[in-house]
Amino acid sequence: MEREHISAIFDQELNDLRSRILGMGGKVEMMIAGSVKALVERDTALAERVIAMDHEINTFEVSVDEKCLELLALRQPAARDLRFITLALKIVTDIERIGDQCANIAKRVRELNEEPPLKPYIDIPRMANWTETMLKEALDAFVTGDDQLAIKVCMDDSFVDDLNMQIQRELLSFMIEDPATISRAIKLTYISKYLERIADHATNIAEMVIFMVKGKDIRHTIA
Amino acid sequence: MEREHISAIFDQELNDLRSRILGMGGKVEMMIAGSVKALVERDTALAERVIAMDHEINTFEVSVDEKCLELLALRQPAARDLRFITLALKIVTDIERIGDQCANIAKRVRELNEEPPLKPYIDIPRMANWTETMLKEALDAFVTGDDQLAIKVCMDDSFVDDLNMQIQRELLSFMIEDPATISRAIKLTYISKYLERIADHATNIAEMVIFMVKGKDIRHTIA
Repeated sequence: MEREHISAIFDQELNDLRSRILGMGGKVEMMIAGSVKALVERDTALAERVIAMDHEINTFEVSVDEKCLELLALRQPAARDLRFITLALKIVTDIERIGDQCANIAKRVRELNEEPPLKPYIDIPRMANWTETMLKEALDAFVTGDDQLAIKVCMDDSFVDDLNMQIQRELLSFMIEDPATISRAIKLTYISKYLERIADHATNIAEMVIFMVKGKDIRHTIA
Repeated sequence: MEREHISAIFDQELNDLRSRILGMGGKVEMMIAGSVKALVERDTALAERVIAMDHEINTFEVSVDEKCLELLALRQPAARDLRFITLALKIVTDIERIGDQCANIAKRVRELNEEPPLKPYIDIPRMANWTETMLKEALDAFVTGDDQLAIKVCMDDSFVDDLNMQIQRELLSFMIEDPATISRAIKLTYISKYLERIADHATNIAEMVIFMVKGKDIRHTIA
């Protein structure tokens, strides 16, 4: 009975850990969408809010880390639970770094909003949608242990890479045709690179989930 | 006596973990130096060797992860040892991703070596030296628990960021003056970005070391 009681508490703690990670992921998804909305709608106040949210994410990371250490120290989990908790420790780092990238996007947006718009943005919002979905699916795959969904995320990364290459090429042609666009175009190339990096983090999460589910390493076999 | 014996074995295991991480770090430092040497000396065979080394690094990562899980499961460490092992789990991910970036550099070098050289390279090797030193110092700080050295690494990151910005600007002026250089210049901008990302990983490691040493989070207070 005592053992069952402890086991029920532990299950509850693991669920709490899952919820915290999903909550943190949800906030970061909002940051991705918000930073790009701030670009498209030239909304500097929104960019400022995204930058401010980065602090919340940092606090989240610390609390998840501490929760994981506590579970490892007090519950001494084995096998699957141990793998889940150690993976949570790794994943939370990726989520936090995505938050950093969103703040970076918002900082470039803040600068861009002080100059006339360069062009209507079509591919950058598309890219942001892809990366947001990839992050959401990677975290869903983590909490449900769904390796098929994780594999899909890894596949989707190539679309984001292609979009980034296309955006880089387009912006370069702007800069060559009219050097007056250089300062703005460079900021946009940075935003595209930040989004590409967010997609890389989502892919890293998905690869680690596949590892957790399969119990062996597939991270380095997916081309 | 029995307890002392187990404790001695555990100390030995922790030392073994430290050695593995330093060994993995040493290999990745060689990859940073090798990938840029392959660029400067137009040595495609060396670039190929760097690309091949990435597989070794991936295998290293898996073995460190497994070792950490084993120590957590069998030794049920507390306090400082627990923090060290969970940090090892996070750090090994950064080292592995640095290996990926080195392979990316080497792939661009392989392409560049098929075209005439664009210019003598001065800043890219300097940047590679900085990043290599940062990684070395971040890992030394980790195994010796030296938070002052870790703080130095965090400070050094701004030099690498500045060098990257300078390289990006210089290459852009090449592209604008002579569009025939675009394809090569873009590959060089990528190499510079990969190096900047390696320095970011070294900084991430250093920030986590400061966290481990101080026992509280300073990751998000260093500007």
